[in-house]
Order: sequence, then structure tokens, then C-alpha cells
Amino acid sequence: MNDLLGELRDQREIEALLARYASALDARDWERLATCFTESAVAEYGGLLGRREGASSIVAACRSVLEPLDASQHLIGTIEIELDGDEARSQCAFQAQHVRRGPEGGANFTVGGHYHDELVRTPSGWRIRKRALIATWHDGNPRVVAPE
Amino acid sequence: MNDLLGELRDQREIEALLARYASALDARDWERLATCFTESAVAEYGGLLGRREGASSIVAACRSVLEPLDASQHLIGTIEIELDGDEARSQCAFQAQHVRRGPEGGANFTVGGHYHDELVRTPSGWRIRKRALIATWHDGNPRVVAPE
Amino acid sequence: MNDLLGELRDQREIEALLARYASALDARDWERLATCFTESAVAEYGGLLGRREGASSIVAACRSVLEPLDASQHLIGTIEIELDGDEARSQCAFQAQHVRRGPEGGANFTVGGHYHDELVRTPSGWRIRKRALIATWHDGNPRVVAPE
Repeated sequence: MNDLLGELRDQREIEALLARYASALDARDWERLATCFTESAVAEYGGLLGRREGASSIVAACRSVLEPLDASQHLIGTIEIELDGDEARSQCAFQAQHVRRGPEGGANFTVGGHYHDELVRTPSGWRIRKRALIATWHDGNPRVVAPE
Repeated sequence: MNDLLGELRDQREIEALLARYASALDARDWERLATCFTESAVAEYGGLLGRREGASSIVAACRSVLEPLDASQHLIGTIEIELDGDEARSQCAFQAQHVRRGPEGGANFTVGGHYHDELVRTPSGWRIRKRALIATWHDGNPRVVAPE
Repeated sequence: MNDLLGELRDQREIEALLARYASALDARDWERLATCFTESAVAEYGGLLGRREGASSIVAACRSVLEPLDASQHLIGTIEIELDGDEARSQCAFQAQHVRRGPEGGANFTVGGHYHDELVRTPSGWRIRKRALIATWHDGNPRVVAPE
């Protein structure tokens, strides 16, 4: 296949992968979330979640923060991708909204920052091998994600 | 044409369509907004706007909310698209900012959530046949969009 | 090369360019930022920065606002691109977060709006020839970017 066409396909598949990560979180679809990572993937989440090794530990960490909430929204902006054969690196900005509803209107807690990723082509498509979350700002009520 | 190339073109056209919806709203360009929908399109907006049938009813609904404002911004994140021949489904996260200016600095009302769309290829390009807006959070002053 | 393939490549390169502008700002990578513009580029930033002529003046302006901060995040949503041979026009929505940390939790100042760009293909790839920033809303503490 034409090299350029192959690159455009890889770009598209990686963008779809990073979008899937976000929408799986917000749909609480933990099986779908697991399909974003290699089995031995590492996530450096910092903050509450710290470093997680292995897809199932990463999924469990996300689940522990998001399942108690009433809603979340992970919005990903433009993605920069550097392809290198069967490997790739990417970075993107995100805004993560965490929501608890309540009798007095509830509360939001927003975290913003960047994801830095290492990706690898596998027989099941591109996967995240390493994700670092760099949170650079927050807004709202931090008790939404850390009640006590 | 190569299948993959056709898919990449469809993906690009659908992304451009969803971006056009957002920028037409913010430019109050109601004619351009109408070009995003099939004539008999259905929008499930929930909340203030409810269910709207037909492109002109959808445009009128958007217009009724946005025209009284001083500005709006509909920011769309990454888009997930499933192509199926001349049809497609997509979902994306959005943040909609609604702005009224005033002597004391004015006020904002933000709504965030996801769009879930059904799309169809027509002789004039891809169009939205069904749009569901799932609002999951809001912030700021709700009177910006519902004064009394 | 196939026309469509060339268009998809141009689209991809322009998207990468606009994403690079944002990530260069947030990484305070002023050399990388300069690679986004033609040497004689013009930026109409409005507000604090006004009109800037020449890549080095544009970079200096961005630097003067961002360097005193503890962090920033420029998140870009979907991008609309109109290709016209070796020239192009684009527009996109942005949210720019400006952060100062402090003993009492610090403060944020958010600016939202749209970028309208004119782009040109050069021997070093696509560059911004003219950028207009249209700010339509803000939130938070304006002293974050204008201390006195």
C-alpha cells in the first residue's frame, strides 16, 4: 500500500483509539476501556491514582474514581501523533469533568492537562502501551472525586 | 476508488459536517446550519428545546436559544465514527458556552455532554438524520439561557 | 498523486500545525512556536496583545503573557479547513486556561473563542500567514494574566 495512505490510516486509528478511551470512561464501559491498552500497559496518572501497571489495574483505578460519580466527561482536543513504523507517540490536551448531582444542584470538579502516550500496533489494532497524565489545572469542588 | 481512501474521505467529510454545525451556531448562520440536516431530520435536544422534527424546526429551536445571547461557543472534541456504506453513526463530546454581557461583566452558562448522531450520505454530501444531545453537566448561571 | 490523497495529507498537516501552535505555547517552547508562522506573519490577538507583525514579534507577545504563569492549556476543538492549492483558510474553537498557583490554591483565568487563520504551503511545510483570535467569553480571575 501507498506509504502516505498507510500513515493516514494509522493516524485515523490512533485518533479513534484515544477517543475510545475517553468515551469508554464516560459510558462506564470497562470492557471497552480495557481494549485501549496492551496487557502490560503502564499509566502514570499522578494524584489520586498514581502509577498503575497492567490493563486490568488501570481499568480498576479509573473505575474506582468514576463509578461513584453521577456523570463524567472527558473531552479531548487536537491530537499530535508521531508515527514510527509499528510504534507511535502522541500528545493531546484534555478536560475531564466530574459530576455529582444533589438536592442543591450538585457540584462539578474539572481537571485539565495533557496526555502523553506511547502506542504500539498489535494484531488487534493500535493500543496504548504507556500513558502519562499531566494535570496542570483544576476548578470546582475537589470533594466530588475525594469525598473525605 | 480504493476502499480505504473512500473511508478516509467519508471520515473527513463527517468531521467537517459536525464542525460546521458548531460554527454555524456560533456565527448565527441559520442557512448554513440548515445544510447540516436532512429535511426530515430529528433532533432530541432534551431540556429547553425537547424533540424537534424537520430541519427548519431544528434551526428555529437553536435560533430561539442563541439569538438573544451576546455570544456562544460550541467546542467539539474528538469524534468517533462508524461507517456503514451510505450511513454512519458518530458520537462526540461537546462544551457549549452561552454568554450575556452586561454592565457588571455579564454571565456565562456552560453545558457539557455528548452528541450521538445518525448520518446519511445524500447527493449534497453527508447530513445529520438524527441527533441526540445528552447533557451531563452544566456550570454558571442558568438564567443566561432562560431569563425568567 | 491522487488529488484526494493530496487533500487528505494537506488537511492532516494543517491540523498538526494548529495543534503544534497550542502545544508549543503550553510547553513554553518558543522555537517550536516560531515554526508555526511565516516570517512575515500577522497575528490579530486583540485585548492585551493587539496586532503583531512578524513571527518573532508574535512569539515575543505570547511569551510575555505565558512565561509569568505556572501553567497554561490551549485546547483546540474540531478544525474546519478550506484548501485552495498552496493556500488554505481554517477556523477552530479554542479554550485557553491560564493558571497561577499560590498558597490559597491559586487562580485560573479562562478565555474562549475562535481562531480564524490563513495558511500557506512553504518549502518547510504549511505555516500560518495570518491568525485572528476572536475572544468571545472569559471566566475566572483576569488578574492571572494582568496582575495590576
